Amino acid sequence: MKHFINLNDVSDVTELVKLGLEQKANPFANKHLGLNKTIGLLFFNSSLRTRISTQKAAMNLGMNVIVMNVGSDSWQLEFEDGVIMDQGKAEHIKEAAAVLGQYCDIIAVRAFAELKDRNDDYKETVLESFRKYAGVPIINLESATRHPCQSLADLITIEELKTKEKPKVVLTWAPHFKPLPQAVGNSFAEWVLMTDYEFVIANPEGYDLSPEIRKNAKVVHSQEEAFAGADFIYAKNWSSYEQYGQVLTQDPSWKITPEKMALTNNAKFMHCLPVRRGLKVSDEVLDADYSAVIQQAGNRVWSVQAVIKQILEGLAV
Amino acid sequence: MKHFINLNDVSDVTELVKLGLEQKANPFANKHLGLNKTIGLLFFNSSLRTRISTQKAAMNLGMNVIVMNVGSDSWQLEFEDGVIMDQGKAEHIKEAAAVLGQYCDIIAVRAFAELKDRNDDYKETVLESFRKYAGVPIINLESATRHPCQSLADLITIEELKTKEKPKVVLTWAPHFKPLPQAVGNSFAEWVLMTDYEFVIANPEGYDLSPEIRKNAKVVHSQEEAFAGADFIYAKNWSSYEQYGQVLTQDPSWKITPEKMALTNNAKFMHCLPVRRGLKVSDEVLDADYSAVIQQAGNRVWSVQAVIKQILEGLAV
Amino acid sequence: MKHFINLNDVSDVTELVKLGLEQKANPFANKHLGLNKTIGLLFFNSSLRTRISTQKAAMNLGMNVIVMNVGSDSWQLEFEDGVIMDQGKAEHIKEAAAVLGQYCDIIAVRAFAELKDRNDDYKETVLESFRKYAGVPIINLESATRHPCQSLADLITIEELKTKEKPKVVLTWAPHFKPLPQAVGNSFAEWVLMTDYEFVIANPEGYDLSPEIRKNAKVVHSQEEAFAGADFIYAKNWSSYEQYGQVLTQDPSWKITPEKMALTNNAKFMHCLPVRRGLKVSDEVLDADYSAVIQQAGNRVWSVQAVIKQILEGLAV
Repeated sequence: MKHFINLNDVSDVTELVKLGLEQKANPFANKHLGLNKTIGLLFFNSSLRTRISTQKAAMNLGMNVIVMNVGSDSWQLEFEDGVIMDQGKAEHIKEAAAVLGQYCDIIAVRAFAELKDRNDDYKETVLESFRKYAGVPIINLESATRHPCQSLADLITIEELKTKEKPKVVLTWAPHFKPLPQAVGNSFAEWVLMTDYEFVIANPEGYDLSPEIRKNAKVVHSQEEAFAGADFIYAKNWSSYEQYGQVLTQDPSWKITPEKMALTNNAKFMHCLPVRRGLKVSDEVLDADYSAVIQQAGNRVWSVQAVIKQILEGLAV
Repeated sequence: MKHFINLNDVSDVTELVKLGLEQKANPFANKHLGLNKTIGLLFFNSSLRTRISTQKAAMNLGMNVIVMNVGSDSWQLEFEDGVIMDQGKAEHIKEAAAVLGQYCDIIAVRAFAELKDRNDDYKETVLESFRKYAGVPIINLESATRHPCQSLADLITIEELKTKEKPKVVLTWAPHFKPLPQAVGNSFAEWVLMTDYEFVIANPEGYDLSPEIRKNAKVVHSQEEAFAGADFIYAKNWSSYEQYGQVLTQDPSWKITPEKMALTNNAKFMHCLPVRRGLKVSDEVLDADYSAVIQQAGNRVWSVQAVIKQILEGLAV
Repeated sequence: MKHFINLNDVSDVTELVKLGLEQKANPFANKHLGLNKTIGLLFFNSSLRTRISTQKAAMNLGMNVIVMNVGSDSWQLEFEDGVIMDQGKAEHIKEAAAVLGQYCDIIAVRAFAELKDRNDDYKETVLESFRKYAGVPIINLESATRHPCQSLADLITIEELKTKEKPKVVLTWAPHFKPLPQAVGNSFAEWVLMTDYEFVIANPEGYDLSPEIRKNAKVVHSQEEAFAGADFIYAKNWSSYEQYGQVLTQDPSWKITPEKMALTNNAKFMHCLPVRRGLKVSDEVLDADYSAVIQQAGNRVWSVQAVIKQILEGLAV
């Protein structure tokens, strides 16, 4: 693997899930791979799971880890070409990425959507600029429109918990008062569609994900319809793709409750976290035995460890 | 040792002091204990000594260290049960602690008092929530009402410097213009009371520590009376317990001066730092040969290293 | 080497350049030197290259690294003697430095000029206070008036790229709208003057560096004159020394353009970064084959690695 920015960088999803489970079974078996190698973690936005699970995975593989909060630890970066830099941004991505590529064997980047201009976000300027200018492999720690490390952890979790070969997996929108990115929903849909699981997306009218994402997915506008017979319920809020970045509704009837979960085939409940209790999901659901959110978060280590391992092996060649 | 949140978690104070001195004599003798183990340091508040001494102690024991500033690096946390999370706090402690427990073998937490509601602070919600939800050992890096890592370092320092078996130890209030927590004073009193040293607390009227803390201590309202014959003077400001969190006086006559120190039995001067020179303590006292504040700060490494060592040994069982 | 604060701490510049090139050729050859030793990196100001290259160099030498942002991670520091600390600054440098010296074998510090009072800045209070109170070796990661780690990397880069024994090296002022420190310009001049290269400084009237710095240098007020026959063009903005900290002009005719570069002897272009594209330097210059800025930034690792290695060897004695 050269980069891990989006699904196009992955040759075999099933193999990667298997590799994740192998990392979990033997966390320190490949510690020699990262010897004297450095990964730089760049955060343009806050992080808890991603920050810590990635550090841990890299250290499990024997790497040195350097963490940087862009903007507070260092300079604000300019991403536009050809501008005269006479405003607040002190450094251009061309230099910043190339310089970091001098210091790091792998660079991992988190940079959320701005939710102002759909084309801007879907161009993935930040991550693609690092791919273009850094000269070393780039890992996506959640970009404007994708969160592949999360999706890989999600598939690992489903693999661990599924009780039939082809479970029914439901991705459902849940209410939130703030406009949130589409990255987690987009990636989860894309990754599940690479498996042979049954897959349904449930969201209110106006909240359909991008045509590109949902072209091979079944989309319904009723949670009840989607939940019937489901083996996995994956809840997530996202703002509207059509009226880009808007909160069109906070309809509390879309909250995940024990009553809704009762419609399923004893489904496991999943969420990428952080989750707002009482708002998107009832306390009872998160505290139930069928909630898999902590196991799912734990699997973030093995997901990114599988990715880093594949990249390190690519470097060695 | 399972946790190190308060004195109830410690079976034998004297043994722990001895263990700290052993760590100081042989800092790297137990580096195998922490191999492939991770400690997460969570700071809800600023830190210099605690941040760096804990990192160093953990590295001396061979551990991986992950540091996080809650709120700037990651999300704001909600600690109340059953609330609808529709405000600024994006993640509940139930998830945050459990997830961190997936990544870390030990979690160390700093979370100061808010000094608004006495019951709230003395419930120790933050540290006790981590104990309840993280599923791994928790170390207190100063909580709302206790600072046991500091107190252990203080006892190590007294052990190193005492010239008689049962020295007279004085904890004295010193003036400050800001309302400060009672954590250091509380813990120091509790820990010294576990020894057979003579112990006196000196503070102005209205500044008595909690009845629970001072029930076995001698409390006087005159520095002169307390300092007479003292072998150790430990200065610290705290805000009022009775009129909770209030600054009732900044009386400069409570400042520690060379004249006051002259009343003692050539006492060593101690303070947990940071200290405001000229306000709480004269420059002359801090710069004197009898000032032990730097040695005391240095012992923060060996204090927390003894704690981590005991916890690591408990994990191995 | 005891400290690395300014050029007076260096016994032989040529040897140090050679040592840097050796580190680059064999990055991990001295990993035993730093075993169980800790370097603390203290940032009073933002940093990208310095932060990451210094971490990497220290890890290459086997050291433990602790990074701290002063003011956000920890307390604001007081540097004045004899004040009553009843304002925002919670800790005095006397305690802070001495305590850090208890935890760290080496302390590296970044503290920019305030550009308010020339005497204050040129006294180098922050770095010299650490030298005075820490009790361990201090490395300058850019102080008020010097940036020696940068200058050493600059000389390493010139050594790698020079095509004649005594190249002509030009340090040229370039326009900027913000008042910037003189540290990089000062240090570059001092360090190049330790070699036998031809050296010219070009800057507008009113922007002459301090008399102390330029006493052995040729200074001209015309870029055209300076660039003629140059082998290296080193661009940097600085605010006025005479009218201290003032921006006297933003004259765009001082911007580095391909036309200006055409006046040289196929000179390499250098800049310490970050650089404001379009403002100080044309995009075409930074994107040209003759731009050495990325290689120069990469050499920051080997520069500081040479320094740390010499200091570690001094500790061992």
